[in-house]
Amino acid sequence: MARYKLTIEYDGMHFYGWQRQEGVFSVQEAIEMALLKLNGTTVLVEGAGRTDKGVHALGQVAHVDLEKEWNPFKLKEGLNHFLRHISILDIEEVKPPFHARFSAKERRYCYRIVNRSAPLSLDQERAWHVKKYLDVEKMQKAASYLLGHHDFSAFRASECQAKHAMRTLLKAEIQRLEEHIHFYFQAPSFLHNQVRIMVGTLKKIGEGVFPISKIQEGLLLKDRTKMGPTAPPHGLYLTHVFY
Amino acid sequence: MARYKLTIEYDGMHFYGWQRQEGVFSVQEAIEMALLKLNGTTVLVEGAGRTDKGVHALGQVAHVDLEKEWNPFKLKEGLNHFLRHISILDIEEVKPPFHARFSAKERRYCYRIVNRSAPLSLDQERAWHVKKYLDVEKMQKAASYLLGHHDFSAFRASECQAKHAMRTLLKAEIQRLEEHIHFYFQAPSFLHNQVRIMVGTLKKIGEGVFPISKIQEGLLLKDRTKMGPTAPPHGLYLTHVFY
Repeated sequence: MARYKLTIEYDGMHFYGWQRQEGVFSVQEAIEMALLKLNGTTVLVEGAGRTDKGVHALGQVAHVDLEKEWNPFKLKEGLNHFLRHISILDIEEVKPPFHARFSAKERRYCYRIVNRSAPLSLDQERAWHVKKYLDVEKMQKAASYLLGHHDFSAFRASECQAKHAMRTLLKAEIQRLEEHIHFYFQAPSFLHNQVRIMVGTLKKIGEGVFPISKIQEGLLLKDRTKMGPTAPPHGLYLTHVFY
Repeated sequence: MARYKLTIEYDGMHFYGWQRQEGVFSVQEAIEMALLKLNGTTVLVEGAGRTDKGVHALGQVAHVDLEKEWNPFKLKEGLNHFLRHISILDIEEVKPPFHARFSAKERRYCYRIVNRSAPLSLDQERAWHVKKYLDVEKMQKAASYLLGHHDFSAFRASECQAKHAMRTLLKAEIQRLEEHIHFYFQAPSFLHNQVRIMVGTLKKIGEGVFPISKIQEGLLLKDRTKMGPTAPPHGLYLTHVFY
């Protein structure tokens, strides 16, 4: 028996999220099916974190236990042969108690906005199209209030199953390169939809619809309904999981 | 009667190239159909250059003559309403003799390679996947021999209809950022498939299959069959047309 750590990239538009669910096709199921074809056994692929329907990954991490000992390179090549819209970037053998989810120390996400009046063609399923000009300085100032240890109740989905909403945001950076705006968030863990609600709220601040103080209001009042909408999934990328 | 200059972005994977052709769907036809719906008239949209099936554009240029005088912003918004996988980035009114094709002074293309062993997911129809490590310094050295005024017969498709193969290459730059390699070429005009054959040949040099001197051999012997394969269309982007 050996444990393998997989680093995974995927195009979220082809999947109903990471997590296996009845009647729809998920990334987890796709990789488990590829392992069945390659290795002949039904196994559980354990991911570092769930991504919602439409969310992309450049560096999702998962682990799997296999009876047969594999050369990691051959395992990678074999799995990639059976996958589409998913790419296994790297496989390495790890030792328990390594666990993709429980051993993860931090996660990093990137959220992409294309800020222009014309609709998107090449970036259509790759970024959020925002027509109104966004003031990045204002958004950056507002985002700085999110840094640190807070109750993020105002920034969690109603269906979020976490026991409490205390989280520690370690990084909140926003960069503009011409029409492209990238948000970078890093934390030990995130609540369900936290990044997308933060981006949806910051976007309203960037447009001038909300004042910068809206973030402090959210952290103080803990009221989801006072914040901005949940930004669409196709702008979100899980880029790194740190161990 | 007024003439409008259109700057156009498109995702080439959804079209059978720029040029209208019997029985297939082209970018030109899509824009002409949108103009028919919006303006009620059948018009010819004249492009700066043809792009092949699968080739993308970030800054294709075309012009069209319309009887009705349009506010350029409203014309842009109206056309975008009827288009998919094509985005009209900008429209401005121009005066004849401006002509999208004949007035163009230079064209710039970018060719994208992703150089890694794992297959592509998000970049699948957006870049050429090359597994073997490419030596960018070697390719850059080789590309420098392409600069200037030469007979590019070795770098033209057999079906190329240009009267002669003398062309002037003004720019040939290659940059690597981690696994991403970008080629930039600029010239007053290019032969059919010229960029893709140059890239296909430079790739063989980067892999070490061809020596750097292969480029000089091509320019000297003018023999297409001695050069590399035509690189696939989905790595190619028409980025700028200069007037």
